[in-house]
Amino acid sequence: MTKTNPGNFFEDFRLGQVIAHATPRTVTPAFNVLYTALYGARFAVQSSDPFAQAIGYPRAPIDDLAVFHVVFGKTVPDISLNAVANLGYAECRFMHPVYPGDTLSAASEIIGLKENRSRKTGVVYVRSSGFKQDGTRVLDYVRWVMVRKRDEAAPAPGDRVPELRAAVEPTALGDACPPIDGAAYDLALAGSPHRWDDYALGDKFDHLDGATVEEAEHQIATRLYQNIARVHFDQFSQAQGRFARRLVYGGHAISIARALSFNGLANAFHIAAINGGRHVAPLFAGDTVFAWSEVLDKAALPHRSDVGSLRLRTVATKDRPCADFPYRNGGDYNEAVILDLDYWVLMPR
Amino acid sequence: MTKTNPGNFFEDFRLGQVIAHATPRTVTPAFNVLYTALYGARFAVQSSDPFAQAIGYPRAPIDDLAVFHVVFGKTVPDISLNAVANLGYAECRFMHPVYPGDTLSAASEIIGLKENRSRKTGVVYVRSSGFKQDGTRVLDYVRWVMVRKRDEAAPAPGDRVPELRAAVEPTALGDACPPIDGAAYDLALAGSPHRWDDYALGDKFDHLDGATVEEAEHQIATRLYQNIARVHFDQFSQAQGRFARRLVYGGHAISIARALSFNGLANAFHIAAINGGRHVAPLFAGDTVFAWSEVLDKAALPHRSDVGSLRLRTVATKDRPCADFPYRNGGDYNEAVILDLDYWVLMPR
Amino acid sequence: MTKTNPGNFFEDFRLGQVIAHATPRTVTPAFNVLYTALYGARFAVQSSDPFAQAIGYPRAPIDDLAVFHVVFGKTVPDISLNAVANLGYAECRFMHPVYPGDTLSAASEIIGLKENRSRKTGVVYVRSSGFKQDGTRVLDYVRWVMVRKRDEAAPAPGDRVPELRAAVEPTALGDACPPIDGAAYDLALAGSPHRWDDYALGDKFDHLDGATVEEAEHQIATRLYQNIARVHFDQFSQAQGRFARRLVYGGHAISIARALSFNGLANAFHIAAINGGRHVAPLFAGDTVFAWSEVLDKAALPHRSDVGSLRLRTVATKDRPCADFPYRNGGDYNEAVILDLDYWVLMPR
Repeated sequence: MTKTNPGNFFEDFRLGQVIAHATPRTVTPAFNVLYTALYGARFAVQSSDPFAQAIGYPRAPIDDLAVFHVVFGKTVPDISLNAVANLGYAECRFMHPVYPGDTLSAASEIIGLKENRSRKTGVVYVRSSGFKQDGTRVLDYVRWVMVRKRDEAAPAPGDRVPELRAAVEPTALGDACPPIDGAAYDLALAGSPHRWDDYALGDKFDHLDGATVEEAEHQIATRLYQNIARVHFDQFSQAQGRFARRLVYGGHAISIARALSFNGLANAFHIAAINGGRHVAPLFAGDTVFAWSEVLDKAALPHRSDVGSLRLRTVATKDRPCADFPYRNGGDYNEAVILDLDYWVLMPR
Repeated sequence: MTKTNPGNFFEDFRLGQVIAHATPRTVTPAFNVLYTALYGARFAVQSSDPFAQAIGYPRAPIDDLAVFHVVFGKTVPDISLNAVANLGYAECRFMHPVYPGDTLSAASEIIGLKENRSRKTGVVYVRSSGFKQDGTRVLDYVRWVMVRKRDEAAPAPGDRVPELRAAVEPTALGDACPPIDGAAYDLALAGSPHRWDDYALGDKFDHLDGATVEEAEHQIATRLYQNIARVHFDQFSQAQGRFARRLVYGGHAISIARALSFNGLANAFHIAAINGGRHVAPLFAGDTVFAWSEVLDKAALPHRSDVGSLRLRTVATKDRPCADFPYRNGGDYNEAVILDLDYWVLMPR
Repeated sequence: MTKTNPGNFFEDFRLGQVIAHATPRTVTPAFNVLYTALYGARFAVQSSDPFAQAIGYPRAPIDDLAVFHVVFGKTVPDISLNAVANLGYAECRFMHPVYPGDTLSAASEIIGLKENRSRKTGVVYVRSSGFKQDGTRVLDYVRWVMVRKRDEAAPAPGDRVPELRAAVEPTALGDACPPIDGAAYDLALAGSPHRWDDYALGDKFDHLDGATVEEAEHQIATRLYQNIARVHFDQFSQAQGRFARRLVYGGHAISIARALSFNGLANAFHIAAINGGRHVAPLFAGDTVFAWSEVLDKAALPHRSDVGSLRLRTVATKDRPCADFPYRNGGDYNEAVILDLDYWVLMPR
């Protein structure tokens, strides 16, 4: 009966432990099609082979967030099956493009462990990486997650909080973006006349549209990523829990916000890095997601004149349009905010 | 902040204006699979590569209506983001087959503008075309749509109602259908023994089955087409509107009716043209769609003995089976009717 | 009007009758992607081309149950459109692997007919087979189904109940599994350290997770299989029936249970045969499915040292976790049980 995996508890982890995660996944062109159908993304590079080829890609790449979700999903059975809460992300870099036909696998290293005062839970800091079939690292990120203990009396397996960068350095961006022929980047086909140079620090964009989440949609998406965290799927058990509802996978909210952000950021064709992300409040089926973004920083990339980088904050809300850019009231988040995402995108110059 | 696209209002259009629409789309084989999963279409030509190859196609083509929906979806951000109602279609011709791997883009010309008496809205007539990556025109159609004005006091941008044909001429049909080897068309595999010659003017078919629409389904379908009209997705805003519900994309109803029509018209393997279409009443999630069809006309195609054409009227209803062919009571539509579609199909002779 | 297919009634069948079913289907790589998104399957062989190739497959095969569902779906319009209940399966063998790009078709032979005492219905026993484009038989199974009579006064069309094996013999297993290089089978990537030799008769596994079914999900799945049985799709008509609900296709429950069984049986990479299956109670949207399994038998395969076979019973329940392995109370099933499936799987030795 021990052949069933109950997941790791806090005291099962060790500092420096390396875990190879199960189920490699070949991401075929169908992956992009279903991803599009789930979020309505319209970024031309990921939508059209000829568009991608014209600017220098061998073909349309797999959506960056889809790569993230697939890698994240593989870590769940080993890292977060007994999680209470996913606390944050940092130092997420996209390091190599992923194309249809590539096969993704994942591995993680435990880089921090900190028991909570209650001794019922602890925070696990983990650096996870995604790899292609030839071993090329395509993605690297840190997340920290609060995990239950099996036995409250068990000693803490470690006591270290890693130092994490507040943001990925611009010098570390761009590895997943081949050299781009900016002259061949067709702004009309891409859906916006605005290149990198047209954006300024402090620019804010209300992305206008709202997207109502359905149970079938977030379940189909989360299973597409082979993420089997039971809070997303098991209404019978969730009915007895704190929210009485299935929780929507946080990454689903990120992908919805990214798709909405097309309206205002249509040429932000590539996510190069995620500096930090916080799921401020849970999202449930029936909620309608809105989003707005602000330009936090602008950076040229070293040795590259083809693309420039914008550091963006994208804030997503539920059941509240974003014309007035709701964010924080003093130190607290506006009560409608569900997501606070800080990331770098690339745009043609 | 002007980088966000609020959509065009009636006074923004000009007669003769040509608009290249954003986001080209590579339609991979996955597109057909997801389309099948959304509607349950069973036409053998689109379902099986060997079946399609046996009769003369290089491989199974992309479903005609899927091509229509993808092209239509591209026009939405420029044409109908501020639409009150989609009023009609005409002169829709399928002009070249589309195969998995092809990339579709779209452009439109404004061919008519007519302000309404209220001066709050106007009707925009637009001829839209879909193109393959090599520039081949694959689809051409006219639609007219009622669009809000931003400013009621703005002068009307034009005053012309175009003349439109009541039906596409049989001589203009068939360009999207390669020469067919009728002897190789396997009637058992196709699901019906009836060829073109077996159908007669006035034949009516109750398509029997009912299809209940779910929110997740129409949203997934409409995003598959990258159609982001907010009435389909934003329950928060729709709750404050006339219907208090998300509206199902009209094209979703057309595809449901087409899939149901297999029962009675299994060998109508290709839609060659749409003469006219009217969304008589809105469709909502939870409604069950039924459909029936009538043969309005029969036409041989010039210089072709392989296929013949039937002009069909397909009527779809909601929550009302069609054994008695509900249509009009005098001038008014039966209250259950949601769709009145007049189109040409091809069948093997 | 007779061009519409109302389906066969009991008196329409004949012993020995052979039926070629409609709509061949090319199963592209997208099929696996959508199947994964519907059930969350994580078996490495079906998920990863390199994993499959490393052990001896030319590429990742189509999921076994997906092959079953596609073949089953084709039989519906001819066999069970007027079914009252699907009673059982037997002698189901997977005889050849199916790969993306293959095209499936189906044919059936009527092997038994038995009128019920009421004379309103009869049981039809049918042996159905699935074929690839080159005629290779890939699947063969018997099912029996209770079908309505059109006319109660019609004479029974036959009176024979076929003898069926209680289980497929181990000598008949493995034809759909190429020779496997067990040393190349990476247990870490596959998600479990347990090979065939580690399992023993009587082992039981609670698969732990629960999966809540949504209407959109089972409808999308069932249409993916082009199974158009109206009880799954037509809420308007079902509202007037016995359950007042759409019934979930029984095969959907089987695929859910199979995906859940990964937790405990991760290396059971191939279903070689289904000895028998019973849909004990109907499944509806909103229900949460749980499952457990027991090892009923172990068998080496003749002339093969690469894989061994386990005979499993997988029991699925609704709205009831399976920690205590609910099954029968005396002769009756536990009231939560919906599925009792007896089948052979292959595992690397």
